[in-house]
Amino acid sequence: MNAVTGFQPQDAGFEARVRDSFARQPAMELIGARLATVAPGLCEISLPKKPEITQQHGFVHGGVVGMIADSAAGYAAFSLFPANSTVLTVEYKLNLLAPADADLLLACGRVTRHGRTLTVCTLDVFAHRGGKVTPCATGLATMMCLLGRADAPR
Amino acid sequence: MNAVTGFQPQDAGFEARVRDSFARQPAMELIGARLATVAPGLCEISLPKKPEITQQHGFVHGGVVGMIADSAAGYAAFSLFPANSTVLTVEYKLNLLAPADADLLLACGRVTRHGRTLTVCTLDVFAHRGGKVTPCATGLATMMCLLGRADAPR
Amino acid sequence: MNAVTGFQPQDAGFEARVRDSFARQPAMELIGARLATVAPGLCEISLPKKPEITQQHGFVHGGVVGMIADSAAGYAAFSLFPANSTVLTVEYKLNLLAPADADLLLACGRVTRHGRTLTVCTLDVFAHRGGKVTPCATGLATMMCLLGRADAPR
Amino acid sequence: MNAVTGFQPQDAGFEARVRDSFARQPAMELIGARLATVAPGLCEISLPKKPEITQQHGFVHGGVVGMIADSAAGYAAFSLFPANSTVLTVEYKLNLLAPADADLLLACGRVTRHGRTLTVCTLDVFAHRGGKVTPCATGLATMMCLLGRADAPR
Repeated sequence: MNAVTGFQPQDAGFEARVRDSFARQPAMELIGARLATVAPGLCEISLPKKPEITQQHGFVHGGVVGMIADSAAGYAAFSLFPANSTVLTVEYKLNLLAPADADLLLACGRVTRHGRTLTVCTLDVFAHRGGKVTPCATGLATMMCLLGRADAPR
Repeated sequence: MNAVTGFQPQDAGFEARVRDSFARQPAMELIGARLATVAPGLCEISLPKKPEITQQHGFVHGGVVGMIADSAAGYAAFSLFPANSTVLTVEYKLNLLAPADADLLLACGRVTRHGRTLTVCTLDVFAHRGGKVTPCATGLATMMCLLGRADAPR
Repeated sequence: MNAVTGFQPQDAGFEARVRDSFARQPAMELIGARLATVAPGLCEISLPKKPEITQQHGFVHGGVVGMIADSAAGYAAFSLFPANSTVLTVEYKLNLLAPADADLLLACGRVTRHGRTLTVCTLDVFAHRGGKVTPCATGLATMMCLLGRADAPR
Repeated sequence: MNAVTGFQPQDAGFEARVRDSFARQPAMELIGARLATVAPGLCEISLPKKPEITQQHGFVHGGVVGMIADSAAGYAAFSLFPANSTVLTVEYKLNLLAPADADLLLACGRVTRHGRTLTVCTLDVFAHRGGKVTPCATGLATMMCLLGRADAPR
């Protein structure tokens, strides 16, 4: 059992599986998101600010905040899934707490309840700016495990 | 009152105001989203598929689906706001109904209840592929009107 | 296929199954809720106002509004399930649009997407008062079908 | 500032104000809910199981779980509001994690972000049974402060 998250992965190769899947998401590369931490039931994605991902007030677009939050939750869940499976977002809900006025965003997904079919995760996004950290979004997501369906193309 | 949506805009220049705001969102340009319809209380955003916005299975990334859904809802609400205001997403919730296996996505935001401070919108995203239309996401969003705060930079 | 809802029930005895399950919910009796309409993919629950179900301003309690909304969605989904199954609420989200200032509330659950495991429903609650109907809540719910598990006690 | 919750109430009489408001909610009395803890930005409501509040499988009804979760969140927010105000649930989202198979439920609402108009809270409901505690629901709620509107009847 992982000492920090309290979860025991079913697949010892969970980290490589998550990192490999993330690397196959062109949308994450488009916005410049990077996979930071992967632990059993936990995933952190970082996103440095760049002009291309902003909205009309110059902050990171709320939809981009949602993108990294959803992905962090999906990979937090996927880390606990068995080897021959893929992950599907059933639904997510996000409260935007403050404008994403940041040099760097850090999205953190954590598994709250891991079930065989459905896994519930919390999502938190923090804005880092000049050494200061501000919560900018919080949410909940329901993820589904599709057993026997490969995450990678053959 | 608009015959289709049933809403009367407070600001006759609502469409120009929405289109101008959308044009100032680099994140929408990054993913290739276009503002299609704008009506009082309604906004549609279209998104042609391109490899850069996909996930590991080759479909449009769920987070990108969320981006256009959130924006469509925000601009549906903004169309009903007074001239000197801006719009803030308080929260949104999205159910992903089917993989975004499409040549083109169409996100439709509609105002359900327009209040002075808070406006509630429904979000629907449809996948268009070879003449067939499939619902791929549905949701709800709460938008806030910030009065006296310009949407555009001075 | 039902002409109004567009859904074809798998179990011809769906209405009796839904009504029988509703009748076994003491919590619905406690608040005075009644099962009005049952159709394939649709369920309506009515709730006459009584002092016991109000909050501090004399309106029907928001949590009670949520109770009938959740139940209407659950039974809308259950109407499409096979005979030997039960229904589980995975999650729901509700926006309260107006105080439940009503003589009677009507909660309407409708299936949006029916899947083998998960079914997504919309929830709407309307306040009826003196011949006037006002939307008072709207939401979304995810329901799960538990196959091979009886809804009724043996 | 409260040492446990980290919030400083604006109104020193917050606890009496919350307890007085709770006592004026007949719906809470109907289900048998009791106000346990009140602290700045935190509220706990307990609910002993009784047959009247169950569903068809003999567990506490999911809608009743939602009722105490919504109320706990509302009063967590209300504890931070100024004296002459009332609280309105804008929306809430609840994931049901496990059947409420309990002798006693404990709903805990905590403020995540306190704003002048909107306050975001987390909701957690725990099932207590024979000395064992199981998380049975988790969620998020958005609460609104209505300034200058009394919570109590004149």
